[in-house]
Amino acid sequence: MAEKNKSNKLKARLPRGLADRTPAEIAATREMIEKIRVVYERYGFEPVETPAIEYTDALGKFLPDQDRPNEGVFSFQDDDEQWLSLRYDLTAPLARYVAERVGTENFVLPYRSYRVGWVFRNEKPGPGRFRQFMQFDADTVGSASPAADAEMCMMAADTMEELGLAGRYVVKIWSRRLLDGQMDAVPELNAAPERRVTVLRSIDARDRIGVKGVQQRLAGGRTDDSGDFTKGAGLENSANNFITTASSFMPVTEAQFFTSADLLPEEVVKEMERVDREKPFFDFAVYENKLRMYLKDRPFPEATKLGIDELRRIKTITDICGYSDRIKIDPTVVRGLEYYTGPVFEVELTFPTDGNDGSPRFGSVGGGGRYDGLVSRFRGEPVPATGFSIGVSRFAAALEYLGKLDSKPGYGPVVVTVFDRDRLADYQNMVAKLRAAKIRAELYLGNPKNLGNQLKYADRRNSPCVVIQGSDEKAKGEVTIKDLIVGAELAKLEKGRDEHLQKQAEAQRSVPEAKLVETVRSLLASHGVT
Amino acid sequence: MAEKNKSNKLKARLPRGLADRTPAEIAATREMIEKIRVVYERYGFEPVETPAIEYTDALGKFLPDQDRPNEGVFSFQDDDEQWLSLRYDLTAPLARYVAERVGTENFVLPYRSYRVGWVFRNEKPGPGRFRQFMQFDADTVGSASPAADAEMCMMAADTMEELGLAGRYVVKIWSRRLLDGQMDAVPELNAAPERRVTVLRSIDARDRIGVKGVQQRLAGGRTDDSGDFTKGAGLENSANNFITTASSFMPVTEAQFFTSADLLPEEVVKEMERVDREKPFFDFAVYENKLRMYLKDRPFPEATKLGIDELRRIKTITDICGYSDRIKIDPTVVRGLEYYTGPVFEVELTFPTDGNDGSPRFGSVGGGGRYDGLVSRFRGEPVPATGFSIGVSRFAAALEYLGKLDSKPGYGPVVVTVFDRDRLADYQNMVAKLRAAKIRAELYLGNPKNLGNQLKYADRRNSPCVVIQGSDEKAKGEVTIKDLIVGAELAKLEKGRDEHLQKQAEAQRSVPEAKLVETVRSLLASHGVT
Repeated sequence: MAEKNKSNKLKARLPRGLADRTPAEIAATREMIEKIRVVYERYGFEPVETPAIEYTDALGKFLPDQDRPNEGVFSFQDDDEQWLSLRYDLTAPLARYVAERVGTENFVLPYRSYRVGWVFRNEKPGPGRFRQFMQFDADTVGSASPAADAEMCMMAADTMEELGLAGRYVVKIWSRRLLDGQMDAVPELNAAPERRVTVLRSIDARDRIGVKGVQQRLAGGRTDDSGDFTKGAGLENSANNFITTASSFMPVTEAQFFTSADLLPEEVVKEMERVDREKPFFDFAVYENKLRMYLKDRPFPEATKLGIDELRRIKTITDICGYSDRIKIDPTVVRGLEYYTGPVFEVELTFPTDGNDGSPRFGSVGGGGRYDGLVSRFRGEPVPATGFSIGVSRFAAALEYLGKLDSKPGYGPVVVTVFDRDRLADYQNMVAKLRAAKIRAELYLGNPKNLGNQLKYADRRNSPCVVIQGSDEKAKGEVTIKDLIVGAELAKLEKGRDEHLQKQAEAQRSVPEAKLVETVRSLLASHGVT
Repeated sequence: MAEKNKSNKLKARLPRGLADRTPAEIAATREMIEKIRVVYERYGFEPVETPAIEYTDALGKFLPDQDRPNEGVFSFQDDDEQWLSLRYDLTAPLARYVAERVGTENFVLPYRSYRVGWVFRNEKPGPGRFRQFMQFDADTVGSASPAADAEMCMMAADTMEELGLAGRYVVKIWSRRLLDGQMDAVPELNAAPERRVTVLRSIDARDRIGVKGVQQRLAGGRTDDSGDFTKGAGLENSANNFITTASSFMPVTEAQFFTSADLLPEEVVKEMERVDREKPFFDFAVYENKLRMYLKDRPFPEATKLGIDELRRIKTITDICGYSDRIKIDPTVVRGLEYYTGPVFEVELTFPTDGNDGSPRFGSVGGGGRYDGLVSRFRGEPVPATGFSIGVSRFAAALEYLGKLDSKPGYGPVVVTVFDRDRLADYQNMVAKLRAAKIRAELYLGNPKNLGNQLKYADRRNSPCVVIQGSDEKAKGEVTIKDLIVGAELAKLEKGRDEHLQKQAEAQRSVPEAKLVETVRSLLASHGVT
């Protein structure tokens, strides 16, 4: 019978990909958010909040994971049969917010706003990959100027500085126009534009699958470690080699594009990976040369001209403002979301690579870009926009690893113990007096069967001290205060020695009840507990 | 054609019952949350966070709105066909959290925690009734002591004081055991216990439908203003009169229970509403007398004895701790959620009732109670618990009405205007210098076709000043700073008078470019802008 009841009981568990957060994690995140907020407000951005639920069609589908079109987003039907979804980022809801307000009395463009909140993705969860996570976004809507993009990159850099990461990050910029230009240069992709998204996704996956993997996915396809096959873009070898090397810092020869009947040889791939890891100064001439070699007498793509001009203008602004060492052009940046139309940026943490010390590689902790089409989906007129998003949860993990966030729990509250359960109200009154003096305190609320249990509780709560009033103390009008911090030191000392005796006297003292608050306050002060 | 395109465009709108929040609302809520947090931490509570999504069965169905069993909660199926739901409160997820951890190494009972976050209800939205709203909860799990309930009430009171509401609130307590006892006293309800939930819901609706409405719903049923009929509990008149008057401060005669073949006459209903509005000192003797009159020689309900003992013990503690004027026993309290098992509490804002001045009646802004069964649904052992929840959104509205929250927008950032669009990088560099000095500043990022537009933008952003550098200023190595605050004052003065001339000089000045930061800083200081 007991067996049966047991199996009928509800199981307490969370769905996969969802997590509870500890006090330390909550405190660390709060500290981090406050620092980011200071920078964003200094840049003239103002807060706004949108709800977690939106109409599915208003959010659109721009997630990188479009291989599974019915997944990625948590959706459900409303009473009136309309589909609702949980937001998967903070950009799509902003587009809806702005589209509703453009042209109304009190809404001014350009509009600078920041938003922090939870977003939800109905994806296959994995290590460090959650179905609910926090983002902190800033966006400028209504400005087509590269100055707006430059500002996003500088704000990202200033945020890193505020978080104590000076010298340990780089803001990398590239442009979707340049990626478009690369694809415009390939005759096969002009003939079959539906293959472009596969090309983008292939080069975006490079961090995970390496250059060789990219080449496989640009060609026929690739089978991963788990045996899953991803269909490729079907490019022939010269186009494949061109796309791969264009998304790299490495200069290559004409021969590598054409004369080889094969994909890039092993030694070129290795060299490419080395060069891209080192991230040399980006040279537009080298980049243009790769295009011209591949294009021969075909026309130079218009998108490439626009993209280069755009990046040059951004770089001029950020250089003049003193960010040349931290904001860099990087042809390996893609960004997964499909709504980007112009510059894209990514913040990468660059920890010293001192070999196999087991230190995690955090990589990208934020990114963004220009998305000129997202608001105009709702409106007849074009509404240009650019934004930047920080992955708060992943970032907090990186900061914690670096010791930049204090995530250790502090001291707990003072615990007033219960000796005589008929005098609960008196003990609670002591607690009330401590709290009135702004001292964190609590009454022991468990079963007060013995004092040992209560002291053990205070210990596990990391309390600095406990207050005891038994019948003897009550008769004398006194309370006993036991200092648990000194008590812990005492336990480490040899008994009977001078130091031990002195600490023993300190560790427990009885004072008149009227001096309770005063005594506890000076005890806390002596330990620097606030 | 244009017509057709227009109708095909996506409509930018939010589903009903969901809302965006303004900077002022966000700032006001943040201020409020910080104040609540200070009090909760002083009481020894520590933060914890659970995700917005849980297994549907883990949350259970305890919402007041069980008339529509498939509604109330937003639910959707996971890939593995299991049902997930958005949390409808912060208590059910806590029960799941605790049940998962009880008995593990680092989890200590009693466990005091607080949580703030969004909750979701799939209800019919109405004025002030949203489908997403914020709650701030505190709970003590693992203590059966009335001291734990007393503490919740005192913490609620201290929170009100911290929020500046001294003298304008009352914490009302009652007990589900007493409500149970009232129902145990009614033979018809013992015979048909499934009618109890209808009884509870009927008296809980009194605020909305009045005493007369309660009596209709305790009897055959009631038709509301919109024509919707709610089926009643089917009580005969003496039981109906007993239940109605037991949930009131008013002493009544035996005759009112029995000899009347009708429900309470109009004049008794009016008197009852007056007495309950005045909330006299609660008298247990009067309450017990009502039960004895109705019971005659039937046995006095055990639940009533337990409930009275419970309330007396809570009241003793809160009185000794100095809360007698703010924590009061009130037989009109029910609380809608179905998981409560013992004391229930409610915080009511008590504004002076100075007639029909159009001031909103905010009523309950928080509440809670003991829910001893919620954790044990998951476990074989009983795990007693008590908690308190603040409705942050409704509370913020009340505080704003009272002028206790500063929700007015402050000054915007300094705006650096664009005169010569080829010198964007130089202007951006001025902005960067201001920001480096921790001054909130931005470059005008709209189309810089004329200065008038840019000044209008700065005006609508509520900027304290703008920075201008045209070709003349550039040639002289100067910048012009236009003080918009003085400018606004200037516009109100008669032209040419001494004061006007002086303000005019103040309102706009040119300084060497190297003095930009210094000049702006002293301008902001002169206006007290931080």
